[in-house]
Amino acid sequence: MNFIEKLAQASRKNKSLLCVGLDTDTALVPDHLAIMEFNRAIIDATADLVCAYKPNIAFYEAMGLAGLDALKRTREYIPADIPVIIDAKRGDIGNTAKAYAKSLFEWYNFDATTASPYLGFDSLEPFIQYRDKGVIILCRTSNKGAADFQSLMVDNNGKKQLLYEVVAEKVNGWNVNGNLGLVVGATYPQELEIIRKKYPEMLLLIPGVGAQGGELELVVKYGADKKRERTIINSSRQIIFASKGKDYAKAARREALALRDKINEILDRTA
Amino acid sequence: MNFIEKLAQASRKNKSLLCVGLDTDTALVPDHLAIMEFNRAIIDATADLVCAYKPNIAFYEAMGLAGLDALKRTREYIPADIPVIIDAKRGDIGNTAKAYAKSLFEWYNFDATTASPYLGFDSLEPFIQYRDKGVIILCRTSNKGAADFQSLMVDNNGKKQLLYEVVAEKVNGWNVNGNLGLVVGATYPQELEIIRKKYPEMLLLIPGVGAQGGELELVVKYGADKKRERTIINSSRQIIFASKGKDYAKAARREALALRDKINEILDRTA
Repeated sequence: MNFIEKLAQASRKNKSLLCVGLDTDTALVPDHLAIMEFNRAIIDATADLVCAYKPNIAFYEAMGLAGLDALKRTREYIPADIPVIIDAKRGDIGNTAKAYAKSLFEWYNFDATTASPYLGFDSLEPFIQYRDKGVIILCRTSNKGAADFQSLMVDNNGKKQLLYEVVAEKVNGWNVNGNLGLVVGATYPQELEIIRKKYPEMLLLIPGVGAQGGELELVVKYGADKKRERTIINSSRQIIFASKGKDYAKAARREALALRDKINEILDRTA
Repeated sequence: MNFIEKLAQASRKNKSLLCVGLDTDTALVPDHLAIMEFNRAIIDATADLVCAYKPNIAFYEAMGLAGLDALKRTREYIPADIPVIIDAKRGDIGNTAKAYAKSLFEWYNFDATTASPYLGFDSLEPFIQYRDKGVIILCRTSNKGAADFQSLMVDNNGKKQLLYEVVAEKVNGWNVNGNLGLVVGATYPQELEIIRKKYPEMLLLIPGVGAQGGELELVVKYGADKKRERTIINSSRQIIFASKGKDYAKAARREALALRDKINEILDRTA
């Protein structure tokens, strides 16, 4: 089963567009816990509530080899029917892109990765060639600095577009294997609306609800696809660090449940 | 001593603008050798000929934890007076960028890294804040697909510029700590000329001579700075895989020596 199918199945089974970001920042993990122990408890507490998990590799790299070992074991621990997206934002040329794809898709066995568009098609091709895997490309990110380049007005063969719109258009054209998606931040619901209207069936990964302040109501209304199987709404800190105490897993479940149900409530109301 | 000073000293001491790319692709390393053994022999054979080393982290990630352990040991093995640039092309938001910087600058202790501009200033800031470290940002890359986005015509506050020119201009403006540089591929000498003319003292990392076909004559003529201390001309495969036999280290030295001397000859002739 490929990534897109696996995602659709998990979304349906768990009635969820919610992805939990396993951004296990050691500075925030309760002292007495190992990373792996923390992740295991979060996964146990939320696996029936999510359409996917998304660890950001940076937090694991910051811990050196021990962190990457914990990442690999975390990936192995996640139930087989839930897709795991590694948030790695890689972007490099030919041979090097091939090496990154080998690392993320073969060595770790992730189901999908995020990738950066700046180097163009040939930097993405080695990822795209893994037809069973997903490649989710940065389009409009959720941070303040996103506007520095992504919102520049561009002349795209005579059409005036913002850079992120050009990225969306090109990625859509490159999606011959059906395994591409776009990252569009929850903090810019208007941009989300533009992209979703133009590409109603495109896979969208939407980070930034919760700690980053994205407005859930607009995000769901503008961002979700009709079939509810090509939309991934990610929340990280708001869920996994919902409590700093011993009840962190219980608190994570409570937050995840509330957020999943709230998304579904908005979906049903605005459908 | 910060990265920029260390680079200038190494350039002067070894009379070299040549950086050897330690892109140790296992598929190309002679069968009987471990990665670490291969790298050690290459470093022993070239350490008096280079201004820097630049491993691309992708090749090490492709080997899993053992590869990253070899990368760390390779970094430790390189003589202390030669700067080591990790080619990681990272780019992520706030907290996550901080985690990447911690990994590359603290855990591995690299002197500089490459980074991607797509997410804007706040994605680079956590790297820039390490004042002793270098941050070299993708501007015009050496691959064919570079043109997909980097050569789009942009309206930058009323000025018509190509996207990579906007990146160069913004990075120049962000360079308040003096520790930023740009990646400009050797395969586009005209673009290199434009950037160098506009930013005569900017640190430029120029990959793509050799295997990728960049023309050395034009690269040196257009790309080098007057003081010969803010220019890094990288060659990887042409040097480290110059021979597939047991004489690989000797062959690497021969190639590195020839390339360093050729660069100096062009510098002296065109100065």
